[in-house]
Amino acid sequence: MLTNANPALTFRDEVRPTDGAAVRTIVESAGFFHPHEVEVAVELVQERLGKGRASGYLFLFAEVAGTVAGYTCFGEIPCTEGSYDLYWIAVDARLRGQGLGRELLRRSEETIAASGGRQVYIETSSRPLYDPTRAFYVRCGYHEAARLPDFYARGDAKVIYVRHLPPPAP
Amino acid sequence: MLTNANPALTFRDEVRPTDGAAVRTIVESAGFFHPHEVEVAVELVQERLGKGRASGYLFLFAEVAGTVAGYTCFGEIPCTEGSYDLYWIAVDARLRGQGLGRELLRRSEETIAASGGRQVYIETSSRPLYDPTRAFYVRCGYHEAARLPDFYARGDAKVIYVRHLPPPAP
Repeated sequence: MLTNANPALTFRDEVRPTDGAAVRTIVESAGFFHPHEVEVAVELVQERLGKGRASGYLFLFAEVAGTVAGYTCFGEIPCTEGSYDLYWIAVDARLRGQGLGRELLRRSEETIAASGGRQVYIETSSRPLYDPTRAFYVRCGYHEAARLPDFYARGDAKVIYVRHLPPPAP
Repeated sequence: MLTNANPALTFRDEVRPTDGAAVRTIVESAGFFHPHEVEVAVELVQERLGKGRASGYLFLFAEVAGTVAGYTCFGEIPCTEGSYDLYWIAVDARLRGQGLGRELLRRSEETIAASGGRQVYIETSSRPLYDPTRAFYVRCGYHEAARLPDFYARGDAKVIYVRHLPPPAP
């Protein structure tokens, strides 16, 4: 597994000006996001670079031998006490199936719990295209909390997953 | 009723620089929003003034004799086809119970339907403080679509209401 004691694998939560391009490459590599969704992913990086942590967007980047291989973007939901949204999770298509997404999610949850986060929400689509994505969330300890029919489009529901985090170790 | 052929009652969807202060007054008059929630309401006006309709925020203001008496703020949810959020609805506390909120909501729904909107979502809190608010939504044709326990805080769920709009008249 890529994530098992791979000396070339590193993680960082600092955001760099080059990350906009890295995020674009990774999200486009998934091959199923709409162009406007790719733009939204890149905009969140720009927003964070412009406003810092006050943007509300936290990032975790995984790098293999110094190149971004995957990332998460998450943040506390405004007007909540300890509820977080996972806005994005994406892994370079060439590095799928090696546990990198799971490791990114696990480490992001640790950051969230250490900041007082109680639970993490993930919103996704009910389309068959997202079957593997939803199965991944379930494997990672999430369960379906709500489903809004026809939300994204006719026949395309929004599915809301949640994971209640264990309190951080004292 | 205030809304029945009251010649002093007018509506406008244009947003003016003075509306930030008007929104602050009206939202504060409700007496139960947190200060940071009031700031969010005012920020949406500023965002709209800065970016125009590209901000994604549409407004409807009700004025009585030229003074803002209530308003709605709504918009199409990004990455959806025809799903709208009602972000804010508020009426000056001194003018409650006269049907102004209902009229604002009805007219906002007309605007949404005319723009191809299929449904309107409203998110609110499960706290008893919001009992009258939720009863108002139900009277206006909304039903509970989902409930996320402990979303805002422990014991304070997010309740998501939805109304499926009839297609606009041809």
